[in-house]
Amino acid sequence: MATVKLMSDEDAAAHPAVQAVFDDIRTTRGSDFINNFWRALAYDAALLKRTWEGLKAVMATPGTLDPLVREMIYIAVSTANSCQYCVHSHTAAARARGMTEAQHAELMAVIGLAAQTNHLVTAMQVPVDPEFLA
Amino acid sequence: MATVKLMSDEDAAAHPAVQAVFDDIRTTRGSDFINNFWRALAYDAALLKRTWEGLKAVMATPGTLDPLVREMIYIAVSTANSCQYCVHSHTAAARARGMTEAQHAELMAVIGLAAQTNHLVTAMQVPVDPEFLA
Amino acid sequence: MATVKLMSDEDAAAHPAVQAVFDDIRTTRGSDFINNFWRALAYDAALLKRTWEGLKAVMATPGTLDPLVREMIYIAVSTANSCQYCVHSHTAAARARGMTEAQHAELMAVIGLAAQTNHLVTAMQVPVDPEFLA
Amino acid sequence: MATVKLMSDEDAAAHPAVQAVFDDIRTTRGSDFINNFWRALAYDAALLKRTWEGLKAVMATPGTLDPLVREMIYIAVSTANSCQYCVHSHTAAARARGMTEAQHAELMAVIGLAAQTNHLVTAMQVPVDPEFLA
Amino acid sequence: MATVKLMSDEDAAAHPAVQAVFDDIRTTRGSDFINNFWRALAYDAALLKRTWEGLKAVMATPGTLDPLVREMIYIAVSTANSCQYCVHSHTAAARARGMTEAQHAELMAVIGLAAQTNHLVTAMQVPVDPEFLA
Amino acid sequence: MATVKLMSDEDAAAHPAVQAVFDDIRTTRGSDFINNFWRALAYDAALLKRTWEGLKAVMATPGTLDPLVREMIYIAVSTANSCQYCVHSHTAAARARGMTEAQHAELMAVIGLAAQTNHLVTAMQVPVDPEFLA
Repeated sequence: MATVKLMSDEDAAAHPAVQAVFDDIRTTRGSDFINNFWRALAYDAALLKRTWEGLKAVMATPGTLDPLVREMIYIAVSTANSCQYCVHSHTAAARARGMTEAQHAELMAVIGLAAQTNHLVTAMQVPVDPEFLA
Repeated sequence: MATVKLMSDEDAAAHPAVQAVFDDIRTTRGSDFINNFWRALAYDAALLKRTWEGLKAVMATPGTLDPLVREMIYIAVSTANSCQYCVHSHTAAARARGMTEAQHAELMAVIGLAAQTNHLVTAMQVPVDPEFLA
Repeated sequence: MATVKLMSDEDAAAHPAVQAVFDDIRTTRGSDFINNFWRALAYDAALLKRTWEGLKAVMATPGTLDPLVREMIYIAVSTANSCQYCVHSHTAAARARGMTEAQHAELMAVIGLAAQTNHLVTAMQVPVDPEFLA
Repeated sequence: MATVKLMSDEDAAAHPAVQAVFDDIRTTRGSDFINNFWRALAYDAALLKRTWEGLKAVMATPGTLDPLVREMIYIAVSTANSCQYCVHSHTAAARARGMTEAQHAELMAVIGLAAQTNHLVTAMQVPVDPEFLA
Repeated sequence: MATVKLMSDEDAAAHPAVQAVFDDIRTTRGSDFINNFWRALAYDAALLKRTWEGLKAVMATPGTLDPLVREMIYIAVSTANSCQYCVHSHTAAARARGMTEAQHAELMAVIGLAAQTNHLVTAMQVPVDPEFLA
Repeated sequence: MATVKLMSDEDAAAHPAVQAVFDDIRTTRGSDFINNFWRALAYDAALLKRTWEGLKAVMATPGTLDPLVREMIYIAVSTANSCQYCVHSHTAAARARGMTEAQHAELMAVIGLAAQTNHLVTAMQVPVDPEFLA
């Protein structure tokens, strides 16, 4: 259960600023589905709009990184920050963008390895090699 | 300064199990450079060997993810785990694999966005949509 | 389900050291409700007492920070540490101290922004400006 | 040393999109000082602009939370995320907004206590009381 | 619900590489029980094998640390990384290795204290004493 | 550089409440050395005293866990929380309590393995086996 109310479509209809963002989410994604994250954020229309604009700019603007790669990076950060919802939602998003089981397995392996060496490095306080700072 | 001694090439020469891993690192990478992480791990030859074998399997085995993508995922996890050394070493590795400034900037943007929404989700305790579990 | 047994009122009655802390919690809060955190800690009476004394000293002693501000700081830390129970319990506590929806929304916004810039800074390894150390 | 170049004023002068943000930072803050975070972000003008707009909206827009309270929440998140630069820069910002030594000490105490109970709760896997979900 | 399928004994029987690891887990532990972690990893037989070999080497090889001590260290890391599954599974493992209630309570106390002082140190940015680097 | 002033022996002499804690630290440890953590905390005498009393109760009271084991658990938490100062100070403390190189290496291996499996579990969202809750 959330610490905030999730905004229903009925309530959104009464808040034009929220409705506008919900409309844009639906148009941008070509789907009627609004997931709970946006319904939770909707209790602050300005935060909702700013967060959605940020997400569109970062995840949906054509650039040099493949959309699937961006989703895999998102999963990596969400895992390290221990965000269950985010792991679920972005794994679903990555699958929707074509992530195969083999790619998912490789993603898992890199995440696990990075965490292991991150902790080894911190526990040993390894000094940065000058070569990496060149 | 590390909490363990960093093994010099002279000392490695006296420890055949360490020398074998150092040799394999040099051969695999086609470079004489051994970075401090391996020199720190070398004080436990079994841990050194196991970690290096794991890294080779995950980062250097041909698969479905591009080596550069793997490095970017590594940077993402290392950032969320706040590992300075790892951020430096894997940013250098990503650059060596051809990461452009534009790709680096997009990587930053995704990492920052993911962290923001991770924290928003956790602070609001958003329940996972059943659609994501299908 | 907890990894420890939660102490019931009946069991507490048989442990004077626990009962004394439970009594003090009830008196201090003016409520009969003892939440699960204290019932879990109760299996070590010394740890229970020390933790409760610490919490009283930090959260219930008059000082220069408003009790509501202290609860919002608590929520911020609990979010970054990904503690679901703590987010729920301290959001409830903040509401009991008068946190409005607008204040909650602003708290969310600051937490999300801080997490975003924390990760950007770490990923870019920005050096501390000498001006901040003055 | 950063993993990206810090943009100097000379270089900014040659990038109108960056210069416009630097100008707005100076105007908004009433100071000529541009700290390293913005100079690091400047290598991606769109990310720079979006991050600055977000920060202005969250930290500099009048609202229901005192600007000093927002800075203290920022310090709390930055501490839990182990961001040295952010702790330094936002402690300086909080002091500039009038944070006293007594307030700083109380902030420390709340951060420390929250971290302690966060970890105790997670280690004991305390179930959320139904009362907190009402 | 997991983001991957958990492999049943029936499916494992059809994958010799998985079956071999499941067999070794059962033999090593002297129990028929295969917990969900291994069933989740099984969708990548190479990752499954590598992770199990790593776990055996670290947790089941005789050495200078008592197996119970290793489990308590595992719980400590899992708590700080906010991994619910890991806290549950390794608390069960520690109990199976004889952890008493008194030892569990002391473990909780050390974890909580460490987290508190970790955050205090980071919030105050305490410089490392030269004495600790000697 | 710290975000607070470190209290010198001269300044402590002028603050009886601080001097009393510094005296107790020296007596308890049988050493004249006061490390920077306590000098930083000293700017809030009540927080200093409470933290020191907590540390004495947890780390210096005879119990069921060996003092060296407690220090190794402390290092594990400090590593996962990415606290450089704490890793250095508690590695020094563990060595002072007799930690051998072999024990240190095993501690590293457990910390690294735990972090790896923590992240794998979170990325795969493995459900807790009912057997662990019994």
